[in-house]
Amino acid sequence: MSQDLLSSAAWQRIHQFSADKPTPCLIFDLPTLREKYAELERAFPFADIYYAVKANPDEAVIRCLASLGANFDIASIFELQKLQTLGIPAERMSYGNTIKKASDIAFAYEQGLRLFASDCESDIRKLAKFAPGSKVYIRVLTEGSETADWPLSRKFGCQRDMAVELILLARELGLEPYGISFHVGSQQRDISSWDAAIGKVRFIFDQLADAGIQLQMMNMGGGMPAHYKQRQQDIDAYGSAIRRFLEEDFGDTPPRVIIEPGRSLVAEAGVLVSEVVQISTKSQDSLDRWVYLDVGLFGGLIEAIGEAIQYPLRWDREGGEDEEVIIAGPTCDSMDILYEDHRYRLPLNLQEGDRLYWLSTGAYTTSYSSVEFNGIPPLRSYMLGTEE
Amino acid sequence: MSQDLLSSAAWQRIHQFSADKPTPCLIFDLPTLREKYAELERAFPFADIYYAVKANPDEAVIRCLASLGANFDIASIFELQKLQTLGIPAERMSYGNTIKKASDIAFAYEQGLRLFASDCESDIRKLAKFAPGSKVYIRVLTEGSETADWPLSRKFGCQRDMAVELILLARELGLEPYGISFHVGSQQRDISSWDAAIGKVRFIFDQLADAGIQLQMMNMGGGMPAHYKQRQQDIDAYGSAIRRFLEEDFGDTPPRVIIEPGRSLVAEAGVLVSEVVQISTKSQDSLDRWVYLDVGLFGGLIEAIGEAIQYPLRWDREGGEDEEVIIAGPTCDSMDILYEDHRYRLPLNLQEGDRLYWLSTGAYTTSYSSVEFNGIPPLRSYMLGTEE
Repeated sequence: MSQDLLSSAAWQRIHQFSADKPTPCLIFDLPTLREKYAELERAFPFADIYYAVKANPDEAVIRCLASLGANFDIASIFELQKLQTLGIPAERMSYGNTIKKASDIAFAYEQGLRLFASDCESDIRKLAKFAPGSKVYIRVLTEGSETADWPLSRKFGCQRDMAVELILLARELGLEPYGISFHVGSQQRDISSWDAAIGKVRFIFDQLADAGIQLQMMNMGGGMPAHYKQRQQDIDAYGSAIRRFLEEDFGDTPPRVIIEPGRSLVAEAGVLVSEVVQISTKSQDSLDRWVYLDVGLFGGLIEAIGEAIQYPLRWDREGGEDEEVIIAGPTCDSMDILYEDHRYRLPLNLQEGDRLYWLSTGAYTTSYSSVEFNGIPPLRSYMLGTEE
Repeated sequence: MSQDLLSSAAWQRIHQFSADKPTPCLIFDLPTLREKYAELERAFPFADIYYAVKANPDEAVIRCLASLGANFDIASIFELQKLQTLGIPAERMSYGNTIKKASDIAFAYEQGLRLFASDCESDIRKLAKFAPGSKVYIRVLTEGSETADWPLSRKFGCQRDMAVELILLARELGLEPYGISFHVGSQQRDISSWDAAIGKVRFIFDQLADAGIQLQMMNMGGGMPAHYKQRQQDIDAYGSAIRRFLEEDFGDTPPRVIIEPGRSLVAEAGVLVSEVVQISTKSQDSLDRWVYLDVGLFGGLIEAIGEAIQYPLRWDREGGEDEEVIIAGPTCDSMDILYEDHRYRLPLNLQEGDRLYWLSTGAYTTSYSSVEFNGIPPLRSYMLGTEE
């Protein structure tokens, strides 16, 4: 059983609230979110927080973070519009997606958004045309993504030389060359990944200073991990190490620093409550017990794909022996197996109808849920606590 | 460019209709669906068709197939309810999902459903209690799933010995032991897989005849492939080969045969229309061109995961040279890459704003789409033609 993920007060609150709710559902605890935000602010006093809305776009989550003073990293004009309907002005947003239609850029600009990520020439030209004068930061590729649970591929970012070229092009086209961004990989457990990335940014800052451009901002993206089953450092350790790396490279004149936390803010505030639908073996003499739940890959737990993320799991049945099982979802899709290589241990006396509680599921669950795969409705969610 | 997937009339109809529709969207052609249904009936005159609703649960698709006389394989009580609201009685349905809550069984039984798949003792006991007297068929595991593009794992089904035990238990508990089912793996390109499976069913029929039980039905599941990029046999070849296997094992007294086509019926009737959002390289000297679209894994193309299914692709720009590219989706998720190992060849003069048409996307796209990942709304779809 996992520890320290949720305060015992929060766990009791969630557990009690969930008792009469139909499964599957996500219970999200706003007081825990506020604690995580306070922790993050303490650990990163040198950084401005832009919450990565995609991690959990629930309106209550967004309003809560807005009231705490967060800014927002958006991935699409749909997220922009949603935030606007919640009263958040475009000035508090950064358009972090490097993949944008011309019409997306034009719309964001009309709404007042003036801070854009980019990583290629055609995007810079679109920005110059449809968002003239805006601040632009270039995303560079980083190495060492092997130590992240979700290594980011080369999908986003460009090589260093091209970043320099793009900044020069941005200036030439009348945009405001503002900074450099990177992302060390989601759920990054090796803090030293930031060291190499910050060093690379310093190098680019210097190259551009020689060309007469003084960049002002470094966007470190996300990557700070949430607590899952695997052990890792606390957010404080990340904050102090990253501050040290910054000082080593920038001395006492650091640039403005932006971070884009997603899962590290919201994951631990969520508990996904599921029910055991069926327990079976495939033959008389099989050692493998299959436990089928009413939630699976397509109902919210798609991050279990590849079994990279292993959520902490709790249950109600006490005492007795346990054994390794295979855990699968409820759909007719054979891919919908949650954990077969990684074996969770569950009580031998586990029964159909018992509940399993998936901790740290506040990120990338509800919004990832499929529309109606196998007819199953999207994951329901409930909010605990007040938004302000 | 792919051939023979769609009649040229259908392609022209779809292409023309899509011209003024915003992307991404799925255009589904009901006349093509009717043709596919007629082909299937001709190829499998010895079988009753139960359409696997999960492949495409669009109401128009369901009504069209109902008017053609299809029965329906359902995966959940939600699909059952949806079909009922369309006027289809539960008597025309088979509950093909072996993973069922007691409350699901009770509900289906109340609605008049009397045909259930099962693969384990606890499910048989639930069926006996909540759906007394119903027809039950047992799903057995089959080998040789290496030749299917989506090999079905051991998630569903049980070993042969256990199937026999379950049939005996079903009789003991007052259920009607009705038959045996198997599934050779989705998009199965090796027809001989059915041979081994049918032989296994014959063996089980004989074992049970010795115990005084005459089974009446063999459910062959789905697995008949749709046409994607990879070459394969036509549905006629499947029908005649499977009929031969049946005759070899059952002579002139075959059992009732049920098939559960999903993608083989609906895939080819759908075309997903997407737009090129961005084209870029990652460094000055890179040979790899990245083509980013407004649709990706989370907006409907999740079956591109692992690149096992390669959809045929068309575009409007004519002539000129082409080259290999990497194709990725629009979200900030690094996993959202469609094809990186398998390289599609696209025109060198492809431009942002151009449209790409993904053929054979009528199955497992709209209903798989995520609720609002990255804020992006679920995949829109349009129906062409009349339902009856």
